[in-house]
Amino acid sequence: MLLALAGGVGAARLLRGLVDVMAAADITAVVNTGDDIVLHGLHICPDLDTVTYTLADAVDGGRGWGLAGETWAAMETLERYGGHTWFRLGDRDLATHLFRTQRLTEHATLSEVTAAVARAWGVGVRLLPMSDDRVETRVTIAGPAAGTSVEVGFQEWFVGRGHGVAVESVRFLGAEDARPAPGVLEAVASAEHVVICPSNPIVSIGPLLAVPGVEDAVAARRDEVVAVSPIVAGAALKGPADRMMVDLGHEASVVGVARLYAPLAGTLVIDEADAGLADAVEAEGVRAVVAPSVMTGRAEAAALARAVLAARPSP
Amino acid sequence: MLLALAGGVGAARLLRGLVDVMAAADITAVVNTGDDIVLHGLHICPDLDTVTYTLADAVDGGRGWGLAGETWAAMETLERYGGHTWFRLGDRDLATHLFRTQRLTEHATLSEVTAAVARAWGVGVRLLPMSDDRVETRVTIAGPAAGTSVEVGFQEWFVGRGHGVAVESVRFLGAEDARPAPGVLEAVASAEHVVICPSNPIVSIGPLLAVPGVEDAVAARRDEVVAVSPIVAGAALKGPADRMMVDLGHEASVVGVARLYAPLAGTLVIDEADAGLADAVEAEGVRAVVAPSVMTGRAEAAALARAVLAARPSP
Repeated sequence: MLLALAGGVGAARLLRGLVDVMAAADITAVVNTGDDIVLHGLHICPDLDTVTYTLADAVDGGRGWGLAGETWAAMETLERYGGHTWFRLGDRDLATHLFRTQRLTEHATLSEVTAAVARAWGVGVRLLPMSDDRVETRVTIAGPAAGTSVEVGFQEWFVGRGHGVAVESVRFLGAEDARPAPGVLEAVASAEHVVICPSNPIVSIGPLLAVPGVEDAVAARRDEVVAVSPIVAGAALKGPADRMMVDLGHEASVVGVARLYAPLAGTLVIDEADAGLADAVEAEGVRAVVAPSVMTGRAEAAALARAVLAARPSP
Repeated sequence: MLLALAGGVGAARLLRGLVDVMAAADITAVVNTGDDIVLHGLHICPDLDTVTYTLADAVDGGRGWGLAGETWAAMETLERYGGHTWFRLGDRDLATHLFRTQRLTEHATLSEVTAAVARAWGVGVRLLPMSDDRVETRVTIAGPAAGTSVEVGFQEWFVGRGHGVAVESVRFLGAEDARPAPGVLEAVASAEHVVICPSNPIVSIGPLLAVPGVEDAVAARRDEVVAVSPIVAGAALKGPADRMMVDLGHEASVVGVARLYAPLAGTLVIDEADAGLADAVEAEGVRAVVAPSVMTGRAEAAALARAVLAARPSP
């Protein structure tokens, strides 16, 4: 069994690649829910949905999120009201949030809803939210007046402000009281492969590690854990991981990633573009495995998946 | 100023007629919210939306509710999940519920949200919910086992079961603790015309009267109040008012309507088809005014509106 710690688009693509090279039923993905947002009364789980839609081959490939062939009648009408349209919800995508919210009001757990949604899309990978409890990634940014700061929800920063504002700090509200979702710790402990997907280390993987017990469980598997760098040639392939790392005092490079993951991952897969930094990665105490890691298509994702499976050190 | 007590489709059509014969700004409609339902986490107000969409000339004329030219992508996708699709929500209509729910979570009152929605649709009539507090129309019907009863929400019966099951009793949960929405009692007291629209007396007008103070306020205007019968030739024009009246021990005729409204309305407008029952209506102590009351189109609605205005006894 393979256990993947997953954020959004990058994780979804690697998981799609893994499904092409091993049995979906042998894969468990623990997915970040710190990005979740309650908007219009609806419980929205962007990373879970991105992973689900991608594994169902239903994702909009261009955007990387949402459903292909989506329509936007609800959002267009919401504009008439001056409602919150900054977080785009397609008409078909809305159904996912309607279903999830209804089931949660009926006291289903997020784990149960996640499994039901995945089943409805024919997804064979076992998807677990990191927790059934609410954990909110909150971001502190510069306030409107000089010298002030303001804390906003992750999506207000990421989508609402186009992640164009420097981040002063990040915290995971509720994490200390959250419990890992059923099966998470067991899966980390028993998996043959433990993979940290190429997701933002701070706001995609960070929330998972903030749930009590998860970081320790991953660290206990440290020598076998394989992480995939989300930074290639000093830049994030998607999203603001590079700038955020710099804002928070880290180096936006595979070396910076290696430093962040050194206590958790014995191996880091880095792109060929960063082959010259392999020694610097290894100087951080992390084995460097060089492989093409830019998943431009399904074939590239499958190739990376093979490289990740091969990167695990032999026992 | 004209004050209308309003339910759904019949009330919406009469209000549309009134707007053609008097200034919209001189009309206030107090609308039933006992039919409201929280589904998928969304706060849905079917009667308010029917009135709003009808006054905006945006309603689906065939159905009588929802928006014309609607699409159903969200509902179609919700079927994939086995979600609650019995209550049909069009993609554009969903925006109304998203906006309302978001504003309510931001602590706006239902009155404020209702005004904002009406304004967005260019509706000149002042629309008031009967109350900003939650009142739920609950219906007791036969249970699954012989001799048992079960209580369900109004929409579960009306839409979910196609109102095909006999009603044993009706109650308005929360009504005793509800307050009339701001302006309701003042409007009833000060209106030149007080009109009870052709809506179901029990489950459309009944909830309004169950809000403390409303029935007394209407009764105080009794001699000037003009009701329009929702029953024509012994049948409801739309919906289950006729069967429900019989189920609950009333006569499904203009005479039965006159008996129900006698304490509240000095005048009842009845259709020409019921002209032969005018004397029987008057025997209940209610003036009968005969006028064509079937609103097959906008011209007929305007004609009925004129008849209603003329039906008010001269002071």
